[in-house]
Amino acid sequence: MDIPDHTFVVIMAGGGGTRLWPLSRRCRPKQFLPILPDGQTLLGASLRRCAALCPPERTLVVTTADQVAQVRRCAPHLPIDNLIVEPVGRNTAPCIGLSALAVLARDPQGLMAVVPADHFVQDEAAWLMALQQALATAAAGHIVAVGIRPHRPETGYGYIQLGPETAPGVHLVEAFVEKPDAERATAYVQSGAYLWNAGMFFFPARRILQEIERHLPPLGAILDELRTHPSRTAARYPEAPAISIDYAVMEQLGRARVGQEAAIRVVPASFGWNDVGSFPALCALHPPDRAGNHIVAAGAPPPLLSGAHHNLVVAGTRQLVAAADINGLIIVVTDDVVLVLPAERAQQVRSLVELAQQNGWSEYL
Amino acid sequence: MDIPDHTFVVIMAGGGGTRLWPLSRRCRPKQFLPILPDGQTLLGASLRRCAALCPPERTLVVTTADQVAQVRRCAPHLPIDNLIVEPVGRNTAPCIGLSALAVLARDPQGLMAVVPADHFVQDEAAWLMALQQALATAAAGHIVAVGIRPHRPETGYGYIQLGPETAPGVHLVEAFVEKPDAERATAYVQSGAYLWNAGMFFFPARRILQEIERHLPPLGAILDELRTHPSRTAARYPEAPAISIDYAVMEQLGRARVGQEAAIRVVPASFGWNDVGSFPALCALHPPDRAGNHIVAAGAPPPLLSGAHHNLVVAGTRQLVAAADINGLIIVVTDDVVLVLPAERAQQVRSLVELAQQNGWSEYL
Repeated sequence: MDIPDHTFVVIMAGGGGTRLWPLSRRCRPKQFLPILPDGQTLLGASLRRCAALCPPERTLVVTTADQVAQVRRCAPHLPIDNLIVEPVGRNTAPCIGLSALAVLARDPQGLMAVVPADHFVQDEAAWLMALQQALATAAAGHIVAVGIRPHRPETGYGYIQLGPETAPGVHLVEAFVEKPDAERATAYVQSGAYLWNAGMFFFPARRILQEIERHLPPLGAILDELRTHPSRTAARYPEAPAISIDYAVMEQLGRARVGQEAAIRVVPASFGWNDVGSFPALCALHPPDRAGNHIVAAGAPPPLLSGAHHNLVVAGTRQLVAAADINGLIIVVTDDVVLVLPAERAQQVRSLVELAQQNGWSEYL
Repeated sequence: MDIPDHTFVVIMAGGGGTRLWPLSRRCRPKQFLPILPDGQTLLGASLRRCAALCPPERTLVVTTADQVAQVRRCAPHLPIDNLIVEPVGRNTAPCIGLSALAVLARDPQGLMAVVPADHFVQDEAAWLMALQQALATAAAGHIVAVGIRPHRPETGYGYIQLGPETAPGVHLVEAFVEKPDAERATAYVQSGAYLWNAGMFFFPARRILQEIERHLPPLGAILDELRTHPSRTAARYPEAPAISIDYAVMEQLGRARVGQEAAIRVVPASFGWNDVGSFPALCALHPPDRAGNHIVAAGAPPPLLSGAHHNLVVAGTRQLVAAADINGLIIVVTDDVVLVLPAERAQQVRSLVELAQQNGWSEYL
């Protein structure tokens, strides 16, 4: 299957995140961290992977003004004009709208593959097949998602309910479903009729702008103004409503029980997808040693472990991490923070970040 | 009770130790670490405490050549000649013999109070009373120990079996007992007839040299030579047998069932003694916070703890130590090492040190 003409890749590399704190920081989100086994960044890996879809001239990276320098370091080969800069981050609906304007200005028939910068893909051949399928479907004018076949009852993701198959490997979307509780998540996984929403969307630029105009008129109005007056971006963009594309467009189209032509499509896929949204998720990128320990220690001395099993050790300094008789712990050492907590309580990183915030220690965030 | 005339304090500040690794190092034993709640060192606290026994001119510190500079930093007020320097460490019998020569050269009637540099004393008034009692007894020509009333079945210490009382608060020693197993230790504590051997000894310098000559002739011969030729210390001292005074003299005198005049005396005491020989022991010096966490963080940011109970956190760098939902862990952060292990497995520090040694990482030891 070929990649359709007019394809543009839009890599969304804005947004912060503290779920991998202290690795990820407000000013250094996880897409810029060298956390892959080969020391690569997630953004670097995304760029490399997407090179199979289109050449650099048609690869755009959207980011916020404060992260432009970090993007440039990861993507020195991209034309400078292919950095779409949000004056401030306003969630994915405005971000995708702004990117769609950039694509449209380059090619009125532009077809967008919108992918997050900070996800991991194990099986790149399967990934490419799914994206080709999605792009081919989008080329017919549709809005298409790629959904991940779930293998555990994850409560941290949104789900996509599958509708009837409209073409081999392509389904109508029955509904976009918000993050479920554990019971619902289990039912979703068992039913086989739900996919994880991985935030990967495919559509003609013109079509998504129409849908934004229809479902989110305040943003539509701003985008319409910026199309003819791009120099007003800095002044007008910050006024855009901070809403996700999922909520602003996808869920509305799903919920509206619209006709088949308007409905969203989804391509179910399995390619070892991982949003690297937590320390346990980070473990999946680094095969365990014989004692079940996951070690991330590029440039640091290898940790000294005795009687230690099923731990994650992220050593990011010249300090030697030494541990004995520990089980299921997360230990992260950075230049200015040493984090220790049980893997099963990994989400407590958030409490620590909040506590640091309350204590006025924003230099650590 | 007064301090007898001719009293000299001899503080033993040689010897290394890795039980508090990575705080303590081969080249930086625990007596030089600022680990007291007020940031003082154990040697500094020993010197301050011993100032109640005699003036600086009669306070000697014995140490090895490689640690002289560190002693000088802790004891700048001591006359330089009061540093008794062992060319190399040869355990306590040679160390005490060398000190006895130094005392004898200053005062033929010199009376020695030999105390380790690296122990902690909670109740200094009770400590002073016990030492006065011991010194008064030693002034009559006796060898005297101060023994600690045990309050737990510790297997890491030697014990002193009490004999009959010869004066109020002074007993004959029935026997010196090596480190017992857990069962014996429990029986010792329950019997009330055993004390911990804290390595504090009191005697006339002349008397201890006689006993060394009698019970350890090879050392006696070397000391006899050094008495008349002190300049031969560097050449001859390293040939001394590396034996503890406990084994060389105390246990022999105890075992010999000698007459009452020759027998060793012991003063039982309770003054919150702690040999700071492990991380759990270090905890006792630092009162816990309301969650039961012991924090040692002089000069470091206060640790950020959430749902953490009964941990020991030693923060020795500018790094913020952040931990959530951990229990009974030891976390130690130094410039070049981050150590994590359960408090109940604190003795495993030794395995880590051995492992580092095997890996050829002596720069961390």
